[in-house]
Order: sequence, then C-alpha cells, then structure tokens
Amino acid sequence: MPTSNRAVRFNLGALLLTSLICLPACAKDLVHGPKMTMAELIKTSTSADWRMPDAENTLYMELEKGRVVIEMSPYFAPNHVANVKALIREAYFDGLSINRSQDNYVVQWSDATELRSIVKAKKTLPEEFSVRYDAAMAFTRLPDHDGFAAQVGHANGFPAARDPKTGRAWLAHCYGMVGAGRDNASDSGGGAELYAVIGHAPRHLDRNVTLFGRVIHGMELLSALPRGKAAMGFYDKPEQTVTIKSVRIAQDLPPAERSKLEILRTDTPLFKAITEAQRNLSGEWYKKAANYIDLCNVPVPVRVKTE
Amino acid sequence: MPTSNRAVRFNLGALLLTSLICLPACAKDLVHGPKMTMAELIKTSTSADWRMPDAENTLYMELEKGRVVIEMSPYFAPNHVANVKALIREAYFDGLSINRSQDNYVVQWSDATELRSIVKAKKTLPEEFSVRYDAAMAFTRLPDHDGFAAQVGHANGFPAARDPKTGRAWLAHCYGMVGAGRDNASDSGGGAELYAVIGHAPRHLDRNVTLFGRVIHGMELLSALPRGKAAMGFYDKPEQTVTIKSVRIAQDLPPAERSKLEILRTDTPLFKAITEAQRNLSGEWYKKAANYIDLCNVPVPVRVKTE
Repeated sequence: MPTSNRAVRFNLGALLLTSLICLPACAKDLVHGPKMTMAELIKTSTSADWRMPDAENTLYMELEKGRVVIEMSPYFAPNHVANVKALIREAYFDGLSINRSQDNYVVQWSDATELRSIVKAKKTLPEEFSVRYDAAMAFTRLPDHDGFAAQVGHANGFPAARDPKTGRAWLAHCYGMVGAGRDNASDSGGGAELYAVIGHAPRHLDRNVTLFGRVIHGMELLSALPRGKAAMGFYDKPEQTVTIKSVRIAQDLPPAERSKLEILRTDTPLFKAITEAQRNLSGEWYKKAANYIDLCNVPVPVRVKTE
Repeated sequence: MPTSNRAVRFNLGALLLTSLICLPACAKDLVHGPKMTMAELIKTSTSADWRMPDAENTLYMELEKGRVVIEMSPYFAPNHVANVKALIREAYFDGLSINRSQDNYVVQWSDATELRSIVKAKKTLPEEFSVRYDAAMAFTRLPDHDGFAAQVGHANGFPAARDPKTGRAWLAHCYGMVGAGRDNASDSGGGAELYAVIGHAPRHLDRNVTLFGRVIHGMELLSALPRGKAAMGFYDKPEQTVTIKSVRIAQDLPPAERSKLEILRTDTPLFKAITEAQRNLSGEWYKKAANYIDLCNVPVPVRVKTE
C-alpha cells in the first residue's frame, strides 16, 4: 500500500497477521474447508438458537472501565443466587472493591475493610457444591472422556458435569465462571465474597466451592487487571484495588439501561454441530485435527443484539 | 485491631481472606493435612532438585514495565530456537511491539509495520511441530488419561506429549507456552512473529504450530495487558501497542544483569511427589480430592535465587 499514513500501515499489518494463529472463527478457515466452521454455522442460526439471559438472574457489576455482566444459575445454586440478589438489593457491594488478582487463577472481590454490615441477606449459607439433577437440566453431553467427572457437557448454558451413579450434577470451574469464596468450613461462604476464574480451568475446585454464575460480557475488565503482588495475588496497597461502583440486577434497571445480549442455546442441534466443528478444526490453516475437545474449550457464543 | 490506619486494616482484611480459595500453596493447608502439600514438599528440596535455565537458551524481553523471561527448548525446536537467537543477535525485535492481546487466548508480537528487514536470520523455516524422541528427553509421565495425546508429562521442564506408536513427541499449548506464528503453509513461520498463551490451554493447536519455549518469569507483563478491540484481539490503534525495548539472550548479558532464577527439575522423585499432591489436594480446606490432574495444571515452580 503506497501510503505514508502510519495508522493505515498498522492496520494493514494487523490484517496480514490475522492468520498467524487462526482462531475458531478464523476468516481463512471459512473459504476452503469442506466442513462448516463455527463461524459458518453461526451464520445459519435462527432466532430460536439464541436466548436472552433472564434479567432477574443477571447481574451487572459496574467498574470505572465498564460493565461486567454475569449470568447466574438458580438451577445449580438456588440459595446462593437468592442471597447474592438479596445482597445486591441492599447495595452491599456498592463501593466495595476487587482486591485480589492472581495470575492464571482468579480475581476476587469482597469487603476487604470488613466495615460493611449485612442487613437482610444471610452472612453464610450451606454449601451448594452439587445438585440432584432432573429433567429440568437440559444437559448436552460431550462425547469425550473427562478426567474430573463421569460426564461433562453444558446445562442450561453453563459448563457442567454429572454422575449418573449418584444422580448429582455440578458446575465446572472453566474460564469466566463465578463462585462464592469460603473459609475452611463448607458452610462459611454465602456470596459476600465472590471470585471469577481468569486462568486455565482450576477444575480441582469443582465440588469444593459453590459456583453460581458465568461472566457473559466484559470478561476482559477482570482478566486484564494488574496482578496483585501480595501472597495469593492480593493487592498489597489499598490504592491498587479496583472500586466496584455498583452491582445491580438487570431486572431492577429500566430496559434501556440493560445490556442487549443473546447467548447461543446449548440444547440445540446447532450447538452440537459447533462443538463437533471445534473438536475437529479444519480449513487451510489446521494441519492436524484434535478429534477431542476439553469441556472448558467449548465456546458458548454471546452476541450483542443490534436492532 | 484497634487501629485507624486504613492500610493496616486493609492488610488484615487481606490476610483474613487468604483461605477463601486456597491455593496449591495455601498456608492453611500446611497445618492439618496428613499428606504433605506442594509447599511442604518444596521445603524439603535440596539444590539438586533445582536447575538454572541454560543462559544460551534463555531470552529476556524487556518491556517498559519489566522483563519477561522465556526458556527455550532446543530439544523440541532446534531450528526455531537457533533462528530466534539469530534474530535477537541482529536486534530484530528491538523496538517492535506486542500488537495482539486476545482474551483467553494469546498475546502476539511481531513487526506490524513490516518495515523491519531480516538480515542474517532466516525469514521462514520448516515446521517443528514434533520430534522423534530419544533417551535425551527426560520424560516424567503423568499417570492420567489425556484427551489430546497418548501420553503426557514433562520433558526437560516443559509440558509435553508423546506417542510411542509413532515415536514422536511435542510440546503442549499450556498457559505461558511460547510459539512461532505462521500463515497457512506449515513452513511459513520461523520465529519473527511470536505468541504466548494467556488463557485456558488451546491444546487443539498442538502439532499445528511450532512451540519452542515457556515464560518462566514476568508472565503477568503479558497476561494482564489490555485486550485489543480489533478482530482476534489485535490493537486497533498504534498507540495501544506495547513497545519491546529489547530482546536479549541471557548469555549475552553480563552475569550481574541476568535474572537469578531456578526451576524445579521435572525428572526427580520430588517433582513426582508434588504432582501427586496436586492430583489429590488435601488439608482442611479441600472437601473432595480430584484424583486427577490436567497436564496444564501441573505446577513447575520457579524461584528467584537470593544470595
């Protein structure tokens, strides 16, 4: 390109580089592969393939740099979801801070100063590490072996595991999952201290902590925070903490102020097709298909609704 | 604590919170578990359990905010390591930039402006996706099933896989691994464009790209970079890119300027014991041991040498 405009050259460079590591939705993949890629499959989707997260079970954490949207799962953690909502509705989180950011592990937010009191919500709750599952759990099982559980897949949009022998199911600690921190006792959590996974899935935490949600938008506002220098990634200076302006339930905001997000349903033939495409990535760039997928690598696409 | 000093209160809060999600090295775990934890096991280590990375195969990427240290593996990618060193020694990377940061995937650095010329090093190289392994690969095999490979474990300190049927071995795309980006052709990479994994392990890239190293220090200087807003996480404005002040080989610096790092050997009984401790995390906090470990969750501790 015969131009001296640095920005243009930069963009050109960026475009030329886009195939260096192809993504699931890599444009080059779309052209040649005989099989359809995830991006192609998504183009075939209809409105029935997407769902709006339930506003009553979606929370917005407002930070200086933007909004983190978390979808909660009352199916897997009914009491924790109810308590987090009670905490939100008494404005418990407003003005608190993210005070831990540990590389390849979690960010965590809570009342580090311990000055905040809990008025109506519960301070602690019995564990909800797993639930007895039933037909209401729309489970799309992955075909592959998983080292941590008898069966894994997606339940109502969340990465999950189940064990037919015990009849129990639980959410899995994949990237972006949100849970309620606790002390040593199983019933010492409750939702006043929360964390989100920002690294390689710490699946060894499964059934050890109550997970109740997943970040569906604004993940980079958590994952790209500077890491804390104190033990376990805690910020060692108060000025490093990230203030939480407010946490609100989507339902409590006027519709115009809600994030317009849609999530791909996980109980559809389209989702199964996407998972299969990701199990065997094809196209000009891939030389070797894995013929396997790890639960935490299955994409659950979220799109911003524009209409 | 009857103090009005906010910093002290903050630190107290942080200390009280440290058990909310216990880490591998969680202090509370050390007290009660009948089995030894990783932290306890490391305390039993002798100098023979640690190694210094080979200065001739260690590179320092100097950023404004600090140094990223990458250990390279001439065993798995001899030609790429040699070429990256040739590029470094002709100062190819000095003044280039990190121009891609894609959430839960990779950061990437290269000559986005395409103004830099390569003088003595090679522009591209044949792939080194896997090698024919031999006795020089000190392979400590994990006991567990892996979905992506016949056998996985650690080879000379790096997470790796091998297939006895083909006699071949390869490095695995775990968090912090570093590889050479390429275009569609297998032989279109060479080391002038590099990437590091900053998210959940994209193991589907194994044997599709040449990996040649691992970040052993300063990982947070890459993983906490703001994510790019353009497609595939490329920064959409030149001013967002992160300047690489220089890249040097440790051997080329005076000893006083080298990072004093030691890495736990992966071919020792101690490393096996640590892996076993991590497969079954115990202590007061853990209620359920996984009895399994994912290759990319096995810690390979690095310590800063003090004396």
